[in-house]
Amino acid sequence: MHYPLGTVKRNIVRADKAVTDQLGQYGVATVHEAMGRLGLMHTIMRPIYKGVRVSGTAVTVLLHPGDNWMMHVVAEQIQPGDIVVAAITADCTDGYFGDLLATSFKARGARGLIIDAGVRDVRELQAMDFPVWSKAISAKGTIKATLGSVNIPIVCAGALVNPGDVVVADDDGVVIVPAAWAEKTADAAEKRESFEGEKRAKFAAGVLGLDLYNMREPLAKAGLRYID
Amino acid sequence: MHYPLGTVKRNIVRADKAVTDQLGQYGVATVHEAMGRLGLMHTIMRPIYKGVRVSGTAVTVLLHPGDNWMMHVVAEQIQPGDIVVAAITADCTDGYFGDLLATSFKARGARGLIIDAGVRDVRELQAMDFPVWSKAISAKGTIKATLGSVNIPIVCAGALVNPGDVVVADDDGVVIVPAAWAEKTADAAEKRESFEGEKRAKFAAGVLGLDLYNMREPLAKAGLRYID
Amino acid sequence: MHYPLGTVKRNIVRADKAVTDQLGQYGVATVHEAMGRLGLMHTIMRPIYKGVRVSGTAVTVLLHPGDNWMMHVVAEQIQPGDIVVAAITADCTDGYFGDLLATSFKARGARGLIIDAGVRDVRELQAMDFPVWSKAISAKGTIKATLGSVNIPIVCAGALVNPGDVVVADDDGVVIVPAAWAEKTADAAEKRESFEGEKRAKFAAGVLGLDLYNMREPLAKAGLRYID
Amino acid sequence: MHYPLGTVKRNIVRADKAVTDQLGQYGVATVHEAMGRLGLMHTIMRPIYKGVRVSGTAVTVLLHPGDNWMMHVVAEQIQPGDIVVAAITADCTDGYFGDLLATSFKARGARGLIIDAGVRDVRELQAMDFPVWSKAISAKGTIKATLGSVNIPIVCAGALVNPGDVVVADDDGVVIVPAAWAEKTADAAEKRESFEGEKRAKFAAGVLGLDLYNMREPLAKAGLRYID
Amino acid sequence: MHYPLGTVKRNIVRADKAVTDQLGQYGVATVHEAMGRLGLMHTIMRPIYKGVRVSGTAVTVLLHPGDNWMMHVVAEQIQPGDIVVAAITADCTDGYFGDLLATSFKARGARGLIIDAGVRDVRELQAMDFPVWSKAISAKGTIKATLGSVNIPIVCAGALVNPGDVVVADDDGVVIVPAAWAEKTADAAEKRESFEGEKRAKFAAGVLGLDLYNMREPLAKAGLRYID
Amino acid sequence: MHYPLGTVKRNIVRADKAVTDQLGQYGVATVHEAMGRLGLMHTIMRPIYKGVRVSGTAVTVLLHPGDNWMMHVVAEQIQPGDIVVAAITADCTDGYFGDLLATSFKARGARGLIIDAGVRDVRELQAMDFPVWSKAISAKGTIKATLGSVNIPIVCAGALVNPGDVVVADDDGVVIVPAAWAEKTADAAEKRESFEGEKRAKFAAGVLGLDLYNMREPLAKAGLRYID
Repeated sequence: MHYPLGTVKRNIVRADKAVTDQLGQYGVATVHEAMGRLGLMHTIMRPIYKGVRVSGTAVTVLLHPGDNWMMHVVAEQIQPGDIVVAAITADCTDGYFGDLLATSFKARGARGLIIDAGVRDVRELQAMDFPVWSKAISAKGTIKATLGSVNIPIVCAGALVNPGDVVVADDDGVVIVPAAWAEKTADAAEKRESFEGEKRAKFAAGVLGLDLYNMREPLAKAGLRYID
Repeated sequence: MHYPLGTVKRNIVRADKAVTDQLGQYGVATVHEAMGRLGLMHTIMRPIYKGVRVSGTAVTVLLHPGDNWMMHVVAEQIQPGDIVVAAITADCTDGYFGDLLATSFKARGARGLIIDAGVRDVRELQAMDFPVWSKAISAKGTIKATLGSVNIPIVCAGALVNPGDVVVADDDGVVIVPAAWAEKTADAAEKRESFEGEKRAKFAAGVLGLDLYNMREPLAKAGLRYID
Repeated sequence: MHYPLGTVKRNIVRADKAVTDQLGQYGVATVHEAMGRLGLMHTIMRPIYKGVRVSGTAVTVLLHPGDNWMMHVVAEQIQPGDIVVAAITADCTDGYFGDLLATSFKARGARGLIIDAGVRDVRELQAMDFPVWSKAISAKGTIKATLGSVNIPIVCAGALVNPGDVVVADDDGVVIVPAAWAEKTADAAEKRESFEGEKRAKFAAGVLGLDLYNMREPLAKAGLRYID
Repeated sequence: MHYPLGTVKRNIVRADKAVTDQLGQYGVATVHEAMGRLGLMHTIMRPIYKGVRVSGTAVTVLLHPGDNWMMHVVAEQIQPGDIVVAAITADCTDGYFGDLLATSFKARGARGLIIDAGVRDVRELQAMDFPVWSKAISAKGTIKATLGSVNIPIVCAGALVNPGDVVVADDDGVVIVPAAWAEKTADAAEKRESFEGEKRAKFAAGVLGLDLYNMREPLAKAGLRYID
Repeated sequence: MHYPLGTVKRNIVRADKAVTDQLGQYGVATVHEAMGRLGLMHTIMRPIYKGVRVSGTAVTVLLHPGDNWMMHVVAEQIQPGDIVVAAITADCTDGYFGDLLATSFKARGARGLIIDAGVRDVRELQAMDFPVWSKAISAKGTIKATLGSVNIPIVCAGALVNPGDVVVADDDGVVIVPAAWAEKTADAAEKRESFEGEKRAKFAAGVLGLDLYNMREPLAKAGLRYID
Repeated sequence: MHYPLGTVKRNIVRADKAVTDQLGQYGVATVHEAMGRLGLMHTIMRPIYKGVRVSGTAVTVLLHPGDNWMMHVVAEQIQPGDIVVAAITADCTDGYFGDLLATSFKARGARGLIIDAGVRDVRELQAMDFPVWSKAISAKGTIKATLGSVNIPIVCAGALVNPGDVVVADDDGVVIVPAAWAEKTADAAEKRESFEGEKRAKFAAGVLGLDLYNMREPLAKAGLRYID
């Protein structure tokens, strides 16, 4: 938000590719926990089709209500492994993006789109395997009349996104990891995951969280009463 | 809205069948664009199951909150190739329609239902291949106490629908094409589609919309600045 | 709501198991009708994946916004055939429940979870075949700091749920049958279902509801006019 | 919706002025009842300040998301006693209208604005006594780039509005009376009102609706049981 | 919810009048805290006009969508000091209540209405000083066709309400105090209030909550870091 | 979002006081336009009482759902002329703030509160003249268990807020002006205002925007057609 409109930043510092890919393996819930429960987009952001887990580096674009002109501008800035993150300057559900733009984005190497608005041609997008997380599905087309900006910090669905940040998205939602935090977040996520298998086995065997996490004493201390 | 309640119009002029079917091939996004971006229902209208694209001629029904009596009245007015479009006189999410009514509608030749309220038995509806676009899924049943009307102009999910208009619905939503506009809209949609293949090939080959649509000059004129 | 917070009731009277299972065969729409159109949860409660129909006896838990401590307490109270029903003391979409807790609940014999909040790890939950009906999907984790209660009467998504009540859930939503009503509701549901096959056959053969239900006379009496 | 975009209709047939003014005296609830419970806009349409009851003849305008160009076009078509009714081609909450446009509209003789979007300068609008019913208050400004239409039939907040129709608005909402129905609606409303004084006096004296409307017998017939 | 539809319970045990009035003096926020943060209705329930604080004993009514027949039945059960609490069997915003019914309720001694739906004639209701908390304002009228029940336990806007419970409502919302808890809740509320004056004076004098509540140590223990 | 949780930054650079006060005179709509239509919070943020226009320097606080512990921490960081801006790590409507905290904030010199959640004691807040913009009013109290942060960059209701930024709020909403932009935004706002008086006079005299802004030619060029 702190750059004037009408700007395209060409050179951005992207998070490390290996770390970006690693974060994608853990999924949104684990990464969000590993980050200290920050960076999650609003739950209204849903995948247009289920079953995809993806990560990439953010290329950002700020657009105006009902105007997708900058979608073509951002396309040129995409590098392989990027995910485009699109914010609108006011609440809008119009369909900013369809199968033609998806073909272009995909040809540039984009792994997906996160947009705080609507998209269309959702059947075609699924057929071509181009995942999108959006707050709406809408056939409503847009005009090309007003400048926005590309690769400036934006607020998308409640999350601050700087160009180059890591985006992780799956059926649980979308989380943003600042580039500077990517490595330590990946480490923390790996640690979380390494414990999960063991815990899962214990839960499956019937062990209760009450015992696994030693909760009985603090619960009693907090005043929990059992009655019959 | 301009007819008294308690009326059933039997003879309506339906849009040409061939044109109606043709419009169904293009899908909602293309038809909506071809119409000049009019006629789209609110994005809250969603298919109860995905993957269907359908078109048909509108048979309209206006009902009251929590009352589906007129659903049985409209059933008799259905002709093969019709889609029933149902509006409620006030906001309501009740389940006006389930598998029994769907069996009846289907037997009459209906291709689907568009309803600005709720439906139920959605698993059965999918099994019997009867598509519905609605704003809610609700098991809440309805009573049969108050007259509405059949085949009057209605407002359904923000769109004006006259009996006989063309309805096109798919995963992108629902669009209404006035009968008098059907042919020219089909022509415009066909033209749009004929260009899409070529464009898609160019995008897939890496050509940018900036170049394909000659946007660089107008963007520069509008003041777009590239920075590093 | 009429018990103090910080209470766990261990011995609850569960609805009869055979009747509970029987109710699960009819599905939500039929059971809701059989009950006189009561007990339905808000339509915002949706399955995290489709195609499941389940019934079970309610084990209830009341939690605080952003706090899932009591989820571990309720786990111990689950008996085979139960469905956990979770309410929050204020509006919240946080992800209270994921694959680890699901493993624990499943190991205890739970058939599913109904929660007036969010859940996460939805892909994993589907893979392990643990159905959940919730109002949100959210990766947002929760803390463990405040006592709620287990097996007290709760209001979940607009429905009053007493421990031991029958829960029926499917793609149409969630309905609660008070334990004391379970048997007569099952009887009424069975009766409804026994008529449905015959009706469906008639509708499929083209008979109209107008004739099947003798509606023409009352409609005329109410003033319905046919025009051409 | 049935006119192409980019059209301004200059000569419209306005509902009779005396009848329009008369309808304004009854208020929205009475007029809506008198019309047979049709023509009401969605309840999300609220006055920006309370305590105003107004009626007028509709001058309609259709605009695009984030674009208020046509507001200046419609201004020229206003005649004294008109109310401008504005619809948007897609869901939008932007602030299309503020104190400058209000000054212009007022100078032309407009009695108010009904808009299915947002407005701004609400404090100034109240100070200058220019009532607005809208679904949002938003400081977000709009551009002037795309043509809409003036004095075509529009759908505004769920109601069909033809130019020249009567608009009645107060703290209860907004109702549209088709010009052709204005007189008989006014008659029906007057009749309703004439009974209200008597009824109110009886209610105030403690007479119950059960007795005033002879409901005890039909309630008993419907099966109402009194228990102690 | 645990009573059949079509029932009117005449004799209910109302909470003690003195305690009921006392609770009204503390207001919703204080009473809700005193009860352990239970019993609050959803925040969507708003007063139709501001500045009123009221308490009373609940007379409950369950109605159907678009049907206010039982409003006349409940009127007869009102005793001076009661507040009518109305729930609908499904989501509905219709205007169930206007100035005539308010005149009747007031003549019976009702202090207000809480309704999980809409009301109309709001200007008149304010003029006659009859407060209502509702989730909508709507001119949409209702029919009188289906039986509901009076003085059964209901769920209204997320809160369980038993006939005779204490209702407290003000600009902060609506809270329900079970009759059996009324006295101890009043005691707890009184205690809370007795401390508030002293605290307020300290805060006004510039004392920080950090010091007043001795939070500095627990915050440091939890890991709070101050940086420059 | 780019600082770890559990941090309080004591020394922040506040926007110039004179400029901050100047911006408050123009109001939200003018400032938002002057900034290039950026920085506006979601329209769901509404004043708890109307008629206030205020500006101040942002002191930011990030809290957790249902937990207002950090409200007491931020109080200490308030300096005269500040406005506290509060964000929550997930969607929450709880009442984080009431008259006691308001007394403390006011004693510290705060001019108001902007919170993407709920507040309570709204009648008392109005009486003590402490303005709040929030998305909800809720009596629901909060706990004090988890650390957030103070004076870090936050996203509040869709707007990025850095500590020290200028906050302007009135009946039209809330806008954030980055400290580095404050002066030029004030200049641009002043220029806008200086033209408004003249324009208003012309509009009041009946001059149309069509003529004042020379729109007739571009409209004709865009294809606008007048019909009779």
